[in-house]
Amino acid sequence: MTNYILKDESASYYECGFSCDSQIFIRLGNEAFYITDGRYTIEAKEALKDAEVIEADTNLLKSANSLLKDTKIKEILYDPKEWSVYEFEKLKDNLNIKFTPKENFLQIKRIIKTDKEIELLKKAVKLGADRFEQYAKRLTTLLDKDERYLYFEAYDILSTHGENQISFEPIIALDQNSAKPHAHPTSHRLKEDSFILFDAGVKYQRYCSDRTRCTSFNPNLNFEKKQYFKNKKKQKIYDIVLKAQEEAIKAIRPGIKAKEIDKIARDVIENAGYGKYFVHSTGHGVGLDIHEEPYISKTSETLIDENMIFTIEPGIYLEGEFGVRIEDMVRVTKDGVEVL
Amino acid sequence: MTNYILKDESASYYECGFSCDSQIFIRLGNEAFYITDGRYTIEAKEALKDAEVIEADTNLLKSANSLLKDTKIKEILYDPKEWSVYEFEKLKDNLNIKFTPKENFLQIKRIIKTDKEIELLKKAVKLGADRFEQYAKRLTTLLDKDERYLYFEAYDILSTHGENQISFEPIIALDQNSAKPHAHPTSHRLKEDSFILFDAGVKYQRYCSDRTRCTSFNPNLNFEKKQYFKNKKKQKIYDIVLKAQEEAIKAIRPGIKAKEIDKIARDVIENAGYGKYFVHSTGHGVGLDIHEEPYISKTSETLIDENMIFTIEPGIYLEGEFGVRIEDMVRVTKDGVEVL
Repeated sequence: MTNYILKDESASYYECGFSCDSQIFIRLGNEAFYITDGRYTIEAKEALKDAEVIEADTNLLKSANSLLKDTKIKEILYDPKEWSVYEFEKLKDNLNIKFTPKENFLQIKRIIKTDKEIELLKKAVKLGADRFEQYAKRLTTLLDKDERYLYFEAYDILSTHGENQISFEPIIALDQNSAKPHAHPTSHRLKEDSFILFDAGVKYQRYCSDRTRCTSFNPNLNFEKKQYFKNKKKQKIYDIVLKAQEEAIKAIRPGIKAKEIDKIARDVIENAGYGKYFVHSTGHGVGLDIHEEPYISKTSETLIDENMIFTIEPGIYLEGEFGVRIEDMVRVTKDGVEVL
Repeated sequence: MTNYILKDESASYYECGFSCDSQIFIRLGNEAFYITDGRYTIEAKEALKDAEVIEADTNLLKSANSLLKDTKIKEILYDPKEWSVYEFEKLKDNLNIKFTPKENFLQIKRIIKTDKEIELLKKAVKLGADRFEQYAKRLTTLLDKDERYLYFEAYDILSTHGENQISFEPIIALDQNSAKPHAHPTSHRLKEDSFILFDAGVKYQRYCSDRTRCTSFNPNLNFEKKQYFKNKKKQKIYDIVLKAQEEAIKAIRPGIKAKEIDKIARDVIENAGYGKYFVHSTGHGVGLDIHEEPYISKTSETLIDENMIFTIEPGIYLEGEFGVRIEDMVRVTKDGVEVL
């Protein structure tokens, strides 16, 4: 079908090279329309060559509804995850058009990365890896500072003092706070030997990187994957998670199902006796969105194919103690996998 | 009705004192349930005393659906703006319960601020005003830096180097970039006499502040409301916007309609010949959300009442030249208004 409607920022950027936080994009065969409000029309008109920019009079849904009313189309594709019940009612009000739902169709469209996208994602990963190195050095100077201070320093380095965008709010979690997989920074302070979990990414021309490393504080700390902990339990848990990640990565190739990859990571952790402490999926696609198709979960039937790019990030979280997660982005190659 | 379901973070915090980005809150008469995933159960259980925390097995919607299936309720309230078409289908799948839509009912519940909320909002505004002063001083040292650098410095000051949350990503826009009401920072540099628009806010115990000021670069620049521009056109436009803001504020009292306030600001700008360059609403409520009820727009029939708190922020945007917006938060008093 060549008619579809969307409002997601990444999808819009993929379709027409522009996006803002107040938009509806409509493609009707060879024609494209970009509806926005008065705050963004200047930028939209500057950026858009192949779509007609429409400044919404009162609201965007009404403008989209009017535009669709004036066409002769019979059917249009939409993503039911994109529209609220309220918006969808307004959008299709009084229209004699069949709205065909297809979940995530705009992410699925982007699931195989083009050569250009792979290049941008590799640059994002390289930039991100460099920032991890810089942050490791910075951390050695931040003894006694709290997580909130550390968070700000991470944002400073990741964004190059505001020059580039970050993929998401970085997670910097110390000691027992690292057992919360999406911890928020607290007043907990960095001490000698503190356990450190750092999950962060940057954008390069809108494409995201995503990485997680764990280490412990000492004057020579680094974010290499091979880590040495004084504490035996930390070392044991770390090595289990690392093995889970390595085994899962080794299995990746075109033709495997996403849930089979998840199972390999999960089995390593389960066999070590920590299955119930691995409380999330093994990975997710990364591109214009930090989380997108394919999802590497227990239930995903998605067939993995060449040039999909996603994370592998098993974890073990021990409440009140610490949590370990190790995450890298990988690209599926013709007959295997490349760690980015 | 005493049964309702929600997933919005601010609404959840208002209801039970806790929120995270993966949650469904259900109140059934005297019982309350907080459904979340494995990443957040530790924090949720620590924080919640009056709601039962349920860790979702596979997904939150399925857990909510099962929970509702096991009850004997006949009807439940929901906000159709809160749920995607996809989520709503999963939520009510196979249930014999009437889902009653009520738009924004959770914001409307919070539209009149309590004494405690007023206190917190006043503290947020005071903290924000202090940060404006600090930022003005910092700007005098940042000649030749670009907007992205200025943005980062703003974030540093607003967040006290990461110690407190900000209300939204601050807008720091120079010269012609200020004509874009929601400008993103660019490589445009701060020069002698540059026009400067700064729109920013901070949070105090989760309550937001919001303020906008305009000035021009000089070694003594400040963000006072009275501003002197060398350029006559800038002065003229600035004074029109200031008059629009002052007239609108003067008219605020219990019993006036939101759209009447909007009209007063709009009339000042229209009578000065710049009506078509005022491209947004006059204001919005502020509380746990940076944008919430009441909306001070052309069409809002909302009756203004004591202890509502909202912004008044008219603007004039001249494409390719500059844009002026002046914004303050106000509280409606028993018989008038207090500028916060």
